[in-house]
Amino acid sequence: MAKTNPGRFFEHYRLGQVIEHAVPRTVSGGERALYHALYPARHALYSSDEFARACGLPAAPLDDLAAFHLVFGKTVPDVSLNAVANLGYAEGRWHHPVMPGDTLRARSTVIGLKQTSSGGSGVVYVRTEGRNQRDDLVLDYVRWVLVRKQDQGLPAPDPVVPDLKPALQAADLVIPQGLDFSAYDFAQAGEPHRWGDYAVGETIDHVDGVTIEEAEHMLATRLWQNTAKVHFDATFREDGRRLIYGGHVMSLARALSFNGLANAQMIVGLNGGAHANPCFAGTTVRAWSEVLDKAETKAPGVGAIRLRLVATSGGAPFELRGEDGRYLPHVLLDLDYWALMPL
Amino acid sequence: MAKTNPGRFFEHYRLGQVIEHAVPRTVSGGERALYHALYPARHALYSSDEFARACGLPAAPLDDLAAFHLVFGKTVPDVSLNAVANLGYAEGRWHHPVMPGDTLRARSTVIGLKQTSSGGSGVVYVRTEGRNQRDDLVLDYVRWVLVRKQDQGLPAPDPVVPDLKPALQAADLVIPQGLDFSAYDFAQAGEPHRWGDYAVGETIDHVDGVTIEEAEHMLATRLWQNTAKVHFDATFREDGRRLIYGGHVMSLARALSFNGLANAQMIVGLNGGAHANPCFAGTTVRAWSEVLDKAETKAPGVGAIRLRLVATSGGAPFELRGEDGRYLPHVLLDLDYWALMPL
Amino acid sequence: MAKTNPGRFFEHYRLGQVIEHAVPRTVSGGERALYHALYPARHALYSSDEFARACGLPAAPLDDLAAFHLVFGKTVPDVSLNAVANLGYAEGRWHHPVMPGDTLRARSTVIGLKQTSSGGSGVVYVRTEGRNQRDDLVLDYVRWVLVRKQDQGLPAPDPVVPDLKPALQAADLVIPQGLDFSAYDFAQAGEPHRWGDYAVGETIDHVDGVTIEEAEHMLATRLWQNTAKVHFDATFREDGRRLIYGGHVMSLARALSFNGLANAQMIVGLNGGAHANPCFAGTTVRAWSEVLDKAETKAPGVGAIRLRLVATSGGAPFELRGEDGRYLPHVLLDLDYWALMPL
Repeated sequence: MAKTNPGRFFEHYRLGQVIEHAVPRTVSGGERALYHALYPARHALYSSDEFARACGLPAAPLDDLAAFHLVFGKTVPDVSLNAVANLGYAEGRWHHPVMPGDTLRARSTVIGLKQTSSGGSGVVYVRTEGRNQRDDLVLDYVRWVLVRKQDQGLPAPDPVVPDLKPALQAADLVIPQGLDFSAYDFAQAGEPHRWGDYAVGETIDHVDGVTIEEAEHMLATRLWQNTAKVHFDATFREDGRRLIYGGHVMSLARALSFNGLANAQMIVGLNGGAHANPCFAGTTVRAWSEVLDKAETKAPGVGAIRLRLVATSGGAPFELRGEDGRYLPHVLLDLDYWALMPL
Repeated sequence: MAKTNPGRFFEHYRLGQVIEHAVPRTVSGGERALYHALYPARHALYSSDEFARACGLPAAPLDDLAAFHLVFGKTVPDVSLNAVANLGYAEGRWHHPVMPGDTLRARSTVIGLKQTSSGGSGVVYVRTEGRNQRDDLVLDYVRWVLVRKQDQGLPAPDPVVPDLKPALQAADLVIPQGLDFSAYDFAQAGEPHRWGDYAVGETIDHVDGVTIEEAEHMLATRLWQNTAKVHFDATFREDGRRLIYGGHVMSLARALSFNGLANAQMIVGLNGGAHANPCFAGTTVRAWSEVLDKAETKAPGVGAIRLRLVATSGGAPFELRGEDGRYLPHVLLDLDYWALMPL
Repeated sequence: MAKTNPGRFFEHYRLGQVIEHAVPRTVSGGERALYHALYPARHALYSSDEFARACGLPAAPLDDLAAFHLVFGKTVPDVSLNAVANLGYAEGRWHHPVMPGDTLRARSTVIGLKQTSSGGSGVVYVRTEGRNQRDDLVLDYVRWVLVRKQDQGLPAPDPVVPDLKPALQAADLVIPQGLDFSAYDFAQAGEPHRWGDYAVGETIDHVDGVTIEEAEHMLATRLWQNTAKVHFDATFREDGRRLIYGGHVMSLARALSFNGLANAQMIVGLNGGAHANPCFAGTTVRAWSEVLDKAETKAPGVGAIRLRLVATSGGAPFELRGEDGRYLPHVLLDLDYWALMPL
């Protein structure tokens, strides 16, 4: 019996199947420092324990996307080792901030299966949960991937496509316990723009650019214990290039969005996301945002803002799709998320 | 209203203006570990809690230059986003060691303004203070930068050039509370040379060289939340090169100076500094030092030594300026600082 | 008197000489996070405090090879600055896990000296000990290096070659206090294969590959405060290439071996090791293992497994030596170690 993990193929998934992902992980100030070295992350709530306490949290959490990557990384050996494409995300919610000292583990449930018409692969839908050492739900999200079928002679499963929300409603969002922006310090946060200053439809060019190096995206991707060969092994692809983990572009774009959205502090909802085009080292990544929606919350001083975050490798800001409706070639990421912002 | 930060231009500064810089930062063992990965830092007081305790400190602080970079980084969006050149430093003092768990914030006061004769820019002098969560002064220093003027039709302000000390006197230096080198362990520190073994005028070639990679200087510069585009965006300069943050060269040279100055443990004064020539990835950086002055202190077993630290990209050691009085092209940094050393 | 360290030459070593290595080091979660960013390390015992506690340890230790590198790094300025070659390791034992907060220091004793027949160099054998702040022995190992002789006119010392074990016996291994694998969670560890599933002579191709960047190996090597010029200074070798620290390849191969040996949790013995060929940036490193021996231990649920771990830069797995008995050119590392595994 081979001892290495061949990954699962499409025919190995069953509807309702629960997969406990391996390798729990304890985080510390080390992961936080690395996040700040890898991305130009400046949101004050994640940078300063004092700022976080003034907002009602016990200390500065690990960045929300770092928590996402940690959970996502654990799913790779079980969900996407034989994936052809990462097709989408939906219904992502952050339920509990991750603090230094927390230990995260992850579990996925198969909630949909649909073989492709050619029969050579199929779409697998999983709902993944990340939990901490107290069994608190930290985050959950739905992800679907196109996975190769190994034995194409096997019959197709009954197709089941889960009914997923195109976007979370504000009422679906979980506001961290104690969060209070009524004494929010805009000077320390870095920008004066509050929730009321943003209008639905408004677009923001985040101006700055970052050129990515091979060492950087590999350090980041390894930090999340993501094991997909294509990110690390220059001999894996025929063109000798290492594909950058899509989550690296997510974190980079989110960090760049500080410039114009410094007060969009906490990510609490992931409505959807597309890795529109592959990204490779040497690319200079820029970002722009569009305000998609706004809503009030019950927490003191806290508003919710729904944002489209687009990462690009060139082109003009605010261009997304061509006349054919497809993403333009310089669009790397189209992310749709909810953040919390002071009123 | 544009939501991104355009930076301040020369006409936006007023004498006496106080700028509270954004994004406070809590440090942990993570920043210390990264500092040791980014620079060949070996000074024992910053490497070992046990060594630091034997010298009267509660634990090993974060490296003094890391504290400097953290404070400096916060000032970039407010002071040097539209800077043409970083002209100088003076009167820098470290007042309080930074320990893991501390949260730093920064504030600058405009202490001088002088428009250039051409009228297209002006020199801005700021005194910057870094403070911790207990409001202790951690460090302060004066820095002056040449900043572009946006509206050249505006009148020049009355020129005010602050009266700055060419060098701090030993009596100006702040010795950390409790510091005691009377039981200093030279074997664990790495070299036998004590304060009395160094003579004013003595020069030391630190021998070792480090070739810098793009990923390294960007990781470092981001870690200090320095947002200057020129360090990260390969499309920003016409030559497609990313300029290395001058502070990266400072930390690299200081770490290299361990070899010959292992006992120059704590940096407590910054008399001046010039980033003599730009530095780019691929450069192999070397360093040499010259003893400029020596003084006794009131702390037990503790002497002060004033050092010139020069970083180079080539050439012979101990060469600094050409016959025209200008820095030689291979000189990257000329730093003048005070350190504390066992008697 | 020159203040920089010229390193020791062969004639400077005396049998029985004890060298206290400089620069003690306190580790934190920062070093652990960096280890996870630098290597695809996934062994659960070192990733999760919860997992470690369920195995009877107080928390997740720093990876065993990180502890090795930290101790090894301290010896470089005293042992291998003028080394021509790192010839071998023997009798390495891990006695005590290293926890965040621990401070490590190192000491070596010269246990053998043998001048080469040409007289231009000699082999120095040292037994190195790493200890923590409580003076607990953390690890010890024997290493021998070929060191240049500076003054070839000096007489050769009496040759003394220590009697070293070709491999540790299982009874020689130190099992960490409290270690108990009787409730081991194979799902969280990542693989179902237990001690009984491995047969002596079995070989495992670890499948994955990692392409190394200059920034990565330099960050790692600096983190261990290893100062050997050849790793950092691109001008040092005539070919302009920086030699990768052999320990970087050790950690990379060990991390890759997770895929097939996820339950070989703790390294407790180092029987031997050869850096068969030099490694440079751009190399894609792969690994394979061979089970050399197995033994029971007295700890509940804990078996010992002796493994050969081979890192390669190409070629087919399981090829080690050519017909001439020499390592094949694509073999980078041949390591022989004992690990602890659940029964």
